This record gives sequence, C-alpha cells and structure tokens, in this order.
Amino acid sequence: MAPKAPKFEIKTPKGTRDWSGADMVLRERIFRTIADVFKRHGGITIDTPVFELKEILAGKYGEDSKLIYDLADQGGELCSLRYDLTVPFARYLAMNKDVTQIKRYHIAKVYRRDQPAVKKGRMREFYQCDFDIAGVYDPMIPDAEIIRIINEVFEGLGFQGKYTIKLNSRKILDGLFQVCGVPEPLIRPISSAVDKLDKLPWADVRKEMVDEKGLSPEAADKIGQYVLLKGQRDLLEKLKEDKDLAANASMQAGFADMDLLFTYLEAFGADHTVSFDLSLARGLDYYTGVIYEVVTEGSAPAAPASEENKAKAAKKKGGKPSSADDDRSDDPTLGIGSIAAGGRYDNLVGMFSGKTQVPCVGISFGIDRIFSIISAIQKEKERRNEVDVFVMAFGGGKDFTGLLKERSQVCSRLWDAGIKAELLYKVKPKLQNQFKAAEAGGVPFALILGEDELAQGKAKLKEMGLPEDHPLKEGELISLDNLIEEVKVRLARKEQLDKIATQAEGLRVVDGIKGEVAPKKEEEPKAAADIKAEPKTKEEKEVKLVSALAAQAAE
Amino acid sequence: MAPKAPKFEIKTPKGTRDWSGADMVLRERIFRTIADVFKRHGGITIDTPVFELKEILAGKYGEDSKLIYDLADQGGELCSLRYDLTVPFARYLAMNKDVTQIKRYHIAKVYRRDQPAVKKGRMREFYQCDFDIAGVYDPMIPDAEIIRIINEVFEGLGFQGKYTIKLNSRKILDGLFQVCGVPEPLIRPISSAVDKLDKLPWADVRKEMVDEKGLSPEAADKIGQYVLLKGQRDLLEKLKEDKDLAANASMQAGFADMDLLFTYLEAFGADHTVSFDLSLARGLDYYTGVIYEVVTEGSAPAAPASEENKAKAAKKKGGKPSSADDDRSDDPTLGIGSIAAGGRYDNLVGMFSGKTQVPCVGISFGIDRIFSIISAIQKEKERRNEVDVFVMAFGGGKDFTGLLKERSQVCSRLWDAGIKAELLYKVKPKLQNQFKAAEAGGVPFALILGEDELAQGKAKLKEMGLPEDHPLKEGELISLDNLIEEVKVRLARKEQLDKIATQAEGLRVVDGIKGEVAPKKEEEPKAAADIKAEPKTKEEKEVKLVSALAAQAAE
Repeated sequence: MAPKAPKFEIKTPKGTRDWSGADMVLRERIFRTIADVFKRHGGITIDTPVFELKEILAGKYGEDSKLIYDLADQGGELCSLRYDLTVPFARYLAMNKDVTQIKRYHIAKVYRRDQPAVKKGRMREFYQCDFDIAGVYDPMIPDAEIIRIINEVFEGLGFQGKYTIKLNSRKILDGLFQVCGVPEPLIRPISSAVDKLDKLPWADVRKEMVDEKGLSPEAADKIGQYVLLKGQRDLLEKLKEDKDLAANASMQAGFADMDLLFTYLEAFGADHTVSFDLSLARGLDYYTGVIYEVVTEGSAPAAPASEENKAKAAKKKGGKPSSADDDRSDDPTLGIGSIAAGGRYDNLVGMFSGKTQVPCVGISFGIDRIFSIISAIQKEKERRNEVDVFVMAFGGGKDFTGLLKERSQVCSRLWDAGIKAELLYKVKPKLQNQFKAAEAGGVPFALILGEDELAQGKAKLKEMGLPEDHPLKEGELISLDNLIEEVKVRLARKEQLDKIATQAEGLRVVDGIKGEVAPKKEEEPKAAADIKAEPKTKEEKEVKLVSALAAQAAE
Repeated sequence: MAPKAPKFEIKTPKGTRDWSGADMVLRERIFRTIADVFKRHGGITIDTPVFELKEILAGKYGEDSKLIYDLADQGGELCSLRYDLTVPFARYLAMNKDVTQIKRYHIAKVYRRDQPAVKKGRMREFYQCDFDIAGVYDPMIPDAEIIRIINEVFEGLGFQGKYTIKLNSRKILDGLFQVCGVPEPLIRPISSAVDKLDKLPWADVRKEMVDEKGLSPEAADKIGQYVLLKGQRDLLEKLKEDKDLAANASMQAGFADMDLLFTYLEAFGADHTVSFDLSLARGLDYYTGVIYEVVTEGSAPAAPASEENKAKAAKKKGGKPSSADDDRSDDPTLGIGSIAAGGRYDNLVGMFSGKTQVPCVGISFGIDRIFSIISAIQKEKERRNEVDVFVMAFGGGKDFTGLLKERSQVCSRLWDAGIKAELLYKVKPKLQNQFKAAEAGGVPFALILGEDELAQGKAKLKEMGLPEDHPLKEGELISLDNLIEEVKVRLARKEQLDKIATQAEGLRVVDGIKGEVAPKKEEEPKAAADIKAEPKTKEEKEVKLVSALAAQAAE
C-alpha cells in the first residue's frame, strides 16, 4: 500500500499531549513515590471506568459542569468522561454497600473542557493522584493522617519543607459568615469571594462582595477583620477568646475539630508545615469539615494583582467575572496554583445511596503541576531505559560473522536470570555503533563477545563511562560459566556506589522516603521525638541488617 | 444537606466495571510482571491521550470502525476514544520525526462499542499491553525478540508452557492465495474466511468461500490442501519443496523471512512454543509480514462448531454473518479467544507521515482475558493491602487512655523509616477490634503498646497467624530504642521464609521471572545451552551475592 500524505494536521487534540522520553521517566518516578506513600499508610487502589453515566456527574460540580466532556449519543446510555476521581469513588461506595471502611488511592486521568495553559501545567486531559479515607471513625484521626501523608509525599518528592499546607474548616467559615451577618443564600457566593484572597487584595474582594454579591458593607468589613488572619494553634486559641465567635454553634464545632486536629498533627509529627488560614474556602460545594490546599513558592502570584490586570482578565474571558476555582482561572496574575487540595466530604456518598452515608476525607495531588515544578529544577539526567547490559560483538575483516547467534544466546541467559539486556539488531554490527546505542540508552555495562575469547569460554565485561585512567577502563575478562554471577555482583556494586555518590553530592533525589537519601536537616522537627528515637546512623544499621541476612541465608 | 435518593440506577456504564479488592491486586501483579519483561528487553513507555482526533482513527479499522466511541460535538475539534494503542503509536512516530528507532511499551485502556460478554472477559473498556519495536534493522531480528518476549511474559505469568504461539506470514498467505488462483480483490475476504478455521470446520469455511465470497470451487479446494497444515520448521521445509509455491515471488520472500525467523528463535531459545500455522490470517489490514496469535487451552472452543450453532449465532446477531475478528465475535462456540496477538506493520506510520516510513513489529496482550484465566485457577489468597505492622494499644479499665498519641508517634517513626504501618482510628480501641482490622488486611506483624511496657521503653512485637504451639506465639518484647531495626530484621526474615515456603510447596507464582520461584522442569528446552550454562543452584549463588554485598558494605 503506497502511503498517502494525510490532508489534516497530525497532532494530539487540544489540551492533550503525549508523554515520552525523560518527561515520562520523571513522571513515572513521581507516581511511584506518591503510590509508595499511599501504600505505606495502608492504601489500596481501585480503578473506575474513564466514563460514567451522565447522570452520575450531573449536579456535582456547580457551574463548572459546563467543562464536562460528553460522549456522543451513538445509541444506548448517555455517558461523560470523568471530571475528577472523587465523584466516581463516591459512586463506587454507594454501589458497594459492603465497603464501609476503605483507604483507597487512585492515580488516573480526568477530563475538563477548559482553556488549556500548557506552560502552567493546565491541560484538558490530566492526572490526579487521590487518596481518600472512607468510614465512620473517631473524629479527626484520619484527617490528621491525610495531612501526615501530604507531608510525606512532598518530602519524598524532594520539596524539603518548601510548601505550605493551608488549613481551614467549613464549619469555622460557616460560623464566621453567620456571626458577621451574611444571609444564608449569600454564604456560598461570599465564600467564593473569600477564596480569591490568595490572588487579589482585600479591597478588591470586598468590592466584589458589596458591589457584585450585594453584601452589606458592615458585614463585609466584619469579615475582613477575620479572613486575613493566619497562624497555627495560636490563631485557634485567639479565635476561641472572641466572644462573638465562641457563641456560634457551627464555630464551636469547628473549634473542637481544629483542637483535636492540632493535637493529632503534633503526635504524627505533621504540624510544622500547616498554616491555619481563614481565607481558604475551596470552590467545591461538597466539603463539610476540614479543608486544605497545598501551595509552594512557585505557585504564588508573581506580582500583586492590580485592578487593571483584573480588568484585562475579565475582558479576555468575554466580560464574565473569573471563576471561583483558581485551579481553572486564567487570571494572568495567577502562578501555577495549588499543587494539592482536599478536605472532608461526609455527605457526597449519600447523594447516590439515599440514606446510607459514608463519611470521607481525602487529598488530590495535582500531578501535572508538581511535574512542572520538579522538571524545571531537576538537574539530574534521567535514564531513558533500564537496561543493565548491552551485549556486543567485536571483530572485523572478511571472516567476521557478527556473532548474532552467540549474542542472542548470551542475551537469553541474561533474560532468563532477570537481567535487563539488549543487542543491536544487526547481523554484522560495528563495535562503534553498538557503543553508540549503549550510550544513548545510558546502559551501564557492555559485554563484548569476540571469537578468540569465546573459544576460551570468556568475554569482556566493561563498565561504561569510566575515566581514561581507571584501571578497569578496558574491562575485565570474565568466564561465561559464571556469567550471571559476575554480572549480578557488578550490578549490585555499582548500585551501591551510585547511592553513596549521590549521598556525598547531596543531590536532590525524587525518590524514596523522607531523609533516606538526602541528608537530614538538624533543625527539622523530629517526628515523635519523645518516644525513644532510633540511633542516628542509618548506614550502620543497614550494614548490620545485610550482614544478619547474609548470615541467616548461609545457615 | 439532606441526602436525596437518586432516581436512576447507580451503576457503571454498560461493558465497563470497577476494579477493586483481590481482583485489582492480581491485575496489578499481572501488569508488573509484563512491564518487567518489557523493561528487561530495553522497553520504554510512552503515554498518549485517551482520545484522538477523529480523523486519526478514520480508515484504520475497516468495518470495525463502527465500534469507535466518538466524543460529543461540544464545539472545537471532533475526537474519538482510542480503539487500540497501535494507531496512536503510529501517529506518535509520524509526529516525532526524530524518533526513528524505539522499543516502546504502553499499558492502557482502549474502547470499543461492542456487545459486552463479561464472563469471557470482553468489555467495552479494557486494557491492552503493547510492546512494539520500531525502526529499520536487519530483517527478522526484532520479530524474533518479540516472540521471545511473548514466551517470557507467559512463563512469568505461570503458564508453564501451556500456550501456543501460532505463527504465519502475510507474504506466505498472499503468495498462497495467488498460487491457488484467488483473484486480487478477493484476497482479503478469503483471508478472513481462512482466519475462522480455529472455530469452524473446513467444510463450513469452504462453503463461505464459494457460496458467499464467490470463489471458484477449484481454488477453494486448492487452498484447503494448504491451510490446514501446521508444524514447525519442518513444515517450512516441506512447503519449500512444493514447486508451485516456490515459483511465487511473495512466497519466496515469505520463505526467506521464516527461515531467518526460525534460526533466530532457536538462538533466543524461543522456538519450542511456536506453531507455524497456515490458517492464521488475522483480521486487521495493516499487517505486512509475520503475524502471530497466542492461544491457550482455555481459549479453544469447547465443542466443534456445528451448522446449527452457527445459525444460532447468526440469528442472535440479526442475521448478519459473524465478524472476521474472533476477538469480538459473539459466536457461542467461541472460547475466550486469543490471549495475545500482533505482527509486523511496515506501512502504518506512512499513512500519517506521507513519505517517511517507520517499519514496526509488535505484540498486544489481552490483559482482561489473561486475568480471567489466571483468576479462575489462582488459588493463592491475595493480600488486600501491603501494610507490614499494625500498631495497637493494649489496656482496659477506667484509666485506659487508648494511647493514641503513642500509637501515632510509633507509626510516624515507622513511616519515617519507610515501613508500612497502620493504626485504628479510635481513641480507645478494643484489642480485639485492632486484631480484627489487622487480620482483615492480612498484616503480618502487630506492635502492641501497653502502659507498663512503655514505661520501660518497650513494646510487644507479635507475628500474626502463628500456630498455637509456636514458641513466639505470644510475641517478643522489643526495645523501642531499636524499633526500626527490630522490625526490619523480622520483615526481612519473614519475606525470606515465605519465599522458601512457596518454593517448597511448588505453588504457582504469578510474579518474577521464568523459573525463579517455580522449580524448573528438566525437560524444558534450555535457552542457549551450548554457550556454557551457569551453575544450577540459584540459592547458593544468592547467598554468595548477599555475603559479598554485606562484606563490601561493612568495609
């Protein structure tokens, strides 16, 4: 069939992209790091379909419902692509009445017909990484563990404390609005206005409340006294002293929650990155208790927003005021936004199941934004593939067969032993081209077969990239009888040396657990310091453990 | 907000399902096993959007195009959900002209608006696991490696040789039809008819060729002499002796390919599960060279098809003849069908890029079918979560605080060390309920905190599920100073003992590499036996390796 040039542009749909090469490797490492944290806390994963019945999504996302992708009506049920992973999870719980308690995580794509902004990491198809704890438990313990998980994820990703978990409670917000005299129907709109305080000055937000939403100036000013407050447990104590607030029932409930939460956060060693922030309101309707949003330096606005910029933004959007959800606003003053967000939603499952409620609390990591931040500062070279050994043939002249059979057989033995290996798909390959291919993949070892060496049952094993003056630069002759063992020992040695080198250089490592590779900062608050801490030198213990294992295995 | 009972049925869309619990754990293990094989061969993964421009998919799937899911026209580009992973890969290669050689794998969902048959593992949303080698190389080397990969995947999944890789070549088929006198326009329809020989007797297929497709009875009979032939290299030698066939140019090219392929398969130790099968034709148009399809015992039809059954099938489908692609036929005589399939497609990329061709060869594993087979025979109990230690409080009476703070702190230390740990979300939990939760998750160790032991800096570490008379049934008191080390040593020991127990019982293990855990059958052809095999006892070498590592680490 003769290829015809297609008449349309070959591209991915708007707001979508392919992931490949170093980007893909980095994204996979981020996923693995996050999933490891989830599993460390007992998380199990579930997988739901990429589309849901249209009715399932209806009435869950307020005015953002217009961003939902529908499938064409080709007969049968009407379906839509999932908009997040939370509503499908609630639907799953409503369908599976035997599942009354679960810690589930879900790393998958969601879809929003939004204005894409590729540089900011805002796409129409993007990944969410969700962890949710569902079930009836004693108050605030799971909520505190979620915040501990947020800390572990960002430490595991190498953020080294450079992030803030903004924390608030819907109960406190609702109480605050009641105390300040906001009429019931205005509570949600006023809440949305408050949520913009991370990118607009108070004067602008006040203006919106009074001029656009119709709130009385007195109520607005009263709100202004509170919503700019930030702190930690001290702020909670301060609020409790305020008689007006302390008299409100919703506020009392919120205070009790936050009291417990701070106590548990301290026990989990997870209180040092939180900021109790009364301006945090979150866009979605379904939150009922604690809410949180994680911001990092890169996600702060570049400059304080002026009225002019705001006007520009409004104009660009066709005169409509910007959306309450900063995740999807195209306000030009917005940085890359929050990198994780979530909260408690106790009534969502009941929207599907009728009477049966399953209270939930969860967190969603904005993986594409996290990826953008890490890839911008990540200096390490990512390996493209994971191959350990490139099997090569050396020889020349008329009689050179290329040793394809022998290369294939050696590769087969390596594969049989679980060792990752490659060969060049050439009958008579040039040595130079084989080295080029190995270098392109970053393969650490070359196993070079030659007629003479093979006749003695030997081959040359050469570590790639050694400096010119290294004693093993030319490689070592090894016996093919011991092929697997010789290769395994060298791979293990190299892995260990690489690890030590990384530690010595103090490189950022987007992998592993907090402090495992990066040297631990002394000033970092030590979790659970008052329950006898383990000895400091981890290396020593690892050696002990390996020795113990070896002794046991040798018995 | 008071929950309202919804007025529609809460379910997933037709032909889709949620994955959770033991099913999900098993599926993840299958994915990991397959991905490990792909990576062992230098595979790297790419990720493409779940939907493509409608035009990209158009004209690629013949009459099956009617099964494509379209997105609703909500303004902007018209898009469709991907139907397979091959066309998006070809589109990717056409877009990225610098990628001229790649071994890519992709494990992701695809979508077909088909009649679902859940028991057979046929869904509208299902996973494909694809591995493709793209690039210009010496002939048949990548093709042979793909077959080696198929073997490694099914051995890794525990099939122990109980599968057959049916093998044929489009060049041989085309030559055969030419020699038998099939007119050019009939070649594709006659090829489709031949492809049904795995579920219909020859008489029925001949009838379809002559009565429905209009082939001459003489040509049909001539085809019948060949297409029932099966064998290995011997069949190839037999065909080469046939003067009619040997005179045909396409046939000669096919013979040359198969000759090389068998030579390379022998070198790769991958020739023992293939069956050169002249009835294999494959449905899709884009194949240009070698084609293959993997069948297993469970996928063979339960009973030979009769005309009556066939009529029933036709009636069920509204009188239309069944589709050429048995993957999607709802013929009641069909088993669960092929479990993997693929071939060489050298012209697909050119359909997008115009002149530039990138020859490709690949394999797609039907993961849902593989899952159905394994889950039907899998006797092992799957762990629901991966937690290592459940941290509990022991105590009673009025003064029992529940030790929530201490449990939280101990958990935090375990998490800091990368150890998976859980606690019950109760302020004052009953010991019984804590054990119940640990048992439900299959957690191997309980760490029990009590006031008295804590006062001495100790806690009880107890392995779960030990028999009544086991000396450690009641657990061991450990010092919290050495908490991490004590736990790590026991986890490592348990892992090693579990491994030995599994080996001793000879259980099927869906994990790891061929022969690593399951005892190796003596009669199994040993790959590359003539290049000095490594010593047999793997355990010995592992011990040596661990000792070497320990010695090195201690230096």
